[in-house]
Amino acid sequence: MRNFISVHDVTNIDALVQKALAYKTDPLKDKNPGVNKRIGCLFLNPSMRTRLSTQIAAQNLGMETIIFNVGNEGWALEFEDEAIMSGTTVEHVKDAAPILGKYFDILAIRTFPSLNNREDDYSELFIKQFIKYAGIPVVSLESATLHPLQSLTDIVTITEEIQKSNHDSYRNENKKIKIVLSWAPHVKVLPQCVANSFAQWVNAWGQAEFVITYPEDYELSKEFTNGATLTHDQDEALKGADFVYVKNWSTYTDYGKIYCNDPGWMLTNDKLKLTNNAKVMHCLPVRRNVELSDEILDGPDSLVTEEASNRVWAAQAVLAEILAPIP
Amino acid sequence: MRNFISVHDVTNIDALVQKALAYKTDPLKDKNPGVNKRIGCLFLNPSMRTRLSTQIAAQNLGMETIIFNVGNEGWALEFEDEAIMSGTTVEHVKDAAPILGKYFDILAIRTFPSLNNREDDYSELFIKQFIKYAGIPVVSLESATLHPLQSLTDIVTITEEIQKSNHDSYRNENKKIKIVLSWAPHVKVLPQCVANSFAQWVNAWGQAEFVITYPEDYELSKEFTNGATLTHDQDEALKGADFVYVKNWSTYTDYGKIYCNDPGWMLTNDKLKLTNNAKVMHCLPVRRNVELSDEILDGPDSLVTEEASNRVWAAQAVLAEILAPIP
Amino acid sequence: MRNFISVHDVTNIDALVQKALAYKTDPLKDKNPGVNKRIGCLFLNPSMRTRLSTQIAAQNLGMETIIFNVGNEGWALEFEDEAIMSGTTVEHVKDAAPILGKYFDILAIRTFPSLNNREDDYSELFIKQFIKYAGIPVVSLESATLHPLQSLTDIVTITEEIQKSNHDSYRNENKKIKIVLSWAPHVKVLPQCVANSFAQWVNAWGQAEFVITYPEDYELSKEFTNGATLTHDQDEALKGADFVYVKNWSTYTDYGKIYCNDPGWMLTNDKLKLTNNAKVMHCLPVRRNVELSDEILDGPDSLVTEEASNRVWAAQAVLAEILAPIP
Repeated sequence: MRNFISVHDVTNIDALVQKALAYKTDPLKDKNPGVNKRIGCLFLNPSMRTRLSTQIAAQNLGMETIIFNVGNEGWALEFEDEAIMSGTTVEHVKDAAPILGKYFDILAIRTFPSLNNREDDYSELFIKQFIKYAGIPVVSLESATLHPLQSLTDIVTITEEIQKSNHDSYRNENKKIKIVLSWAPHVKVLPQCVANSFAQWVNAWGQAEFVITYPEDYELSKEFTNGATLTHDQDEALKGADFVYVKNWSTYTDYGKIYCNDPGWMLTNDKLKLTNNAKVMHCLPVRRNVELSDEILDGPDSLVTEEASNRVWAAQAVLAEILAPIP
Repeated sequence: MRNFISVHDVTNIDALVQKALAYKTDPLKDKNPGVNKRIGCLFLNPSMRTRLSTQIAAQNLGMETIIFNVGNEGWALEFEDEAIMSGTTVEHVKDAAPILGKYFDILAIRTFPSLNNREDDYSELFIKQFIKYAGIPVVSLESATLHPLQSLTDIVTITEEIQKSNHDSYRNENKKIKIVLSWAPHVKVLPQCVANSFAQWVNAWGQAEFVITYPEDYELSKEFTNGATLTHDQDEALKGADFVYVKNWSTYTDYGKIYCNDPGWMLTNDKLKLTNNAKVMHCLPVRRNVELSDEILDGPDSLVTEEASNRVWAAQAVLAEILAPIP
Repeated sequence: MRNFISVHDVTNIDALVQKALAYKTDPLKDKNPGVNKRIGCLFLNPSMRTRLSTQIAAQNLGMETIIFNVGNEGWALEFEDEAIMSGTTVEHVKDAAPILGKYFDILAIRTFPSLNNREDDYSELFIKQFIKYAGIPVVSLESATLHPLQSLTDIVTITEEIQKSNHDSYRNENKKIKIVLSWAPHVKVLPQCVANSFAQWVNAWGQAEFVITYPEDYELSKEFTNGATLTHDQDEALKGADFVYVKNWSTYTDYGKIYCNDPGWMLTNDKLKLTNNAKVMHCLPVRRNVELSDEILDGPDSLVTEEASNRVWAAQAVLAEILAPIP
């Protein structure tokens, strides 16, 4: 694996998932591949889970990690070619990225969308420029439109749950499990990246019946949802579900807006009764009693803590894959 | 030791003090207990001495440390149960703490009081919630009302001074040493935690005559001062003192106010003449010529640098105690 | 070497340069000198290249590094003696520095000039106070008037280029190479430190014909430029140049002003034709198409990426020199 930006960088999802689960069983089984290697983690937006899990994953492989919070630590980057830099940006990615490529063996980057200009955001200019100019493998720690480490983690978590469960539907070889991605209310304008990325990965994985449910005006880009069943009827979607993934996103078509705040879209135990004893997932942070009710988060059906803890193993599997071909 | 939140977590203060002094003599004598273990240091307020000393202490024990500055690195936590999180807090401690518990072996946390609501501050909600939900040992790096690593350091510093000194009063087995905690002016509204904690530890230690002196209106909570002599007469308090601990705090009764700015409360060499050649202590940072005069801080009676450097050994002793029972 | 603040701390520039180039060939050849030693990197202003290169250099020598961003992590220092600290500064360098001296084996510090008061800036009060009170070796990561790690890097880069090049002028033992420091436009008021320091080092090195060119009113302090040829005629300066170092600085005489924004001072390929196929250097970050044109930065004559990557080896050579006499 050279870069890890989307599911397209993965040749075998199941093999990567099993690699992650093997690290969960024995975190320090590969202490050598990262020795005398260095990963730079560049956060153009701050982070908790992503930062910690990536740093721990790297440490587990023997790598040295340097965290660099760009916002706090002072540095406004220019991404446009031929810019006359007489404004507020202090350094061009064309100059910064090659140097990071000299300092590090792997570069991990978190960027965010503007949520103002869809075309710009969906062109993924920032991370593509880093890939173009860094000259070393680049790992997305979330980009403008995708969050692949989260999605790998989600498939890991689903696979783990299937493996350890005696749930009937998992044992019925004639029936695929059913995964539902259900939109939830939120107070802020959020990116589509977690939803896009989850859709992209579940579709590529191909081992589930996959339904996405959301209010009118909240359709996602077909680039990612193609292959899923789309519906505005949340109750219908939840019927028979084995896993419900809850997530807010802002509108894609009329870009970056909040059209719905209907608390009726919040997942509750009542709604969960429609499912096949579904497990509930969320990438966190979660707005309690806005996106998900306390009763679910504090109850036995929530996988959110396990899911967040699996971020370490997903990151470790990806870093190990990238380290393998580095001399 | 499971957690380290107050003196009540310590079964034998003197043993812990001697452990710290042993680390001072040989910092790297225990390089193994922390190997392949990880401490997360979460700063809800920034810090210099506490951060550096804890990180160095952990490194000396072979532990990996990850520093996480919450304010800068973006993350407003919710601590109230059943909150409907439609406001500014982005994550509930009930969701965040269990994940930190998965990522780390020990969680160290610095929180601060609001200084607006005494009941809230003195309930120590923040750190108690972390203990409740993290599922791993929690070390206070200063909480709303206490600062136990500072107080352990202070007892270490006093013990070290007694051991190396030929000071008569230390040798007279019929007479306890005299320790005075003396309020000092300051320009900002400060917490009571250092004073509370020092009082709690000196009382629990029980090896000193202990006097606390402060202007009217500045009494501390009896929960911590019980056992000490309290007086508004600073001169009387200083008479015969072997150690004078200087510290500002804001009012406790009419909570979080500044009632006194009388520069007469600043410790000077003239006042020090009342003592038994007392050594002067302060937890730093100190406002020079407001809390303490240059002449004292730059003179031979100041222990402040040694005291700050002892923070490392106190932290190392505590972390070693907590690591011992971790498999 | 005790401290590294300016070229005056170096007894043999060429030997230090060769040491740096040896580390470039084999970064991990000295894994022992830093083992169980700790460097504290204190940034009173943020940084990318300086922070990363210093941290990597220290890691290569086996040292533990602790980064401390003062601005973000909360801490306004007082540097004036006898200050009555009733204002905004929270800690005096007299109290902070000795503690850092207890915590670390080497202290590295970045400070910046005020650009308001030349006398204060050029007295280098901040870094001198740290040296006075820390009691351990101090390395400048850029100070108010100098940037010695950058300048050492620059001499390393020039030397490397000479060694690997077949450029005629380098082979002619009767002719010194020609280095030109050329002022460039910028939109912000910048310090003189990179220019001062480069002038100081090239003059001390003594192996080049050295010309500094700048618009009227932009003369630098003679303390640093003495030995160089000074001219306002950029074209004349560039003639026959082997290396052109491009850098903006604000005025020194009428201190901290911008008197010139003439885009004619920007280096372009047309101007480069006047030189002896000169290589172009810049310390970065660079304002593209303001200081230097895209065509140069993206072309074969730019050394800027190599120059920035050499920061690691310069820092590693300096740290190794300082570590050598530490027991």
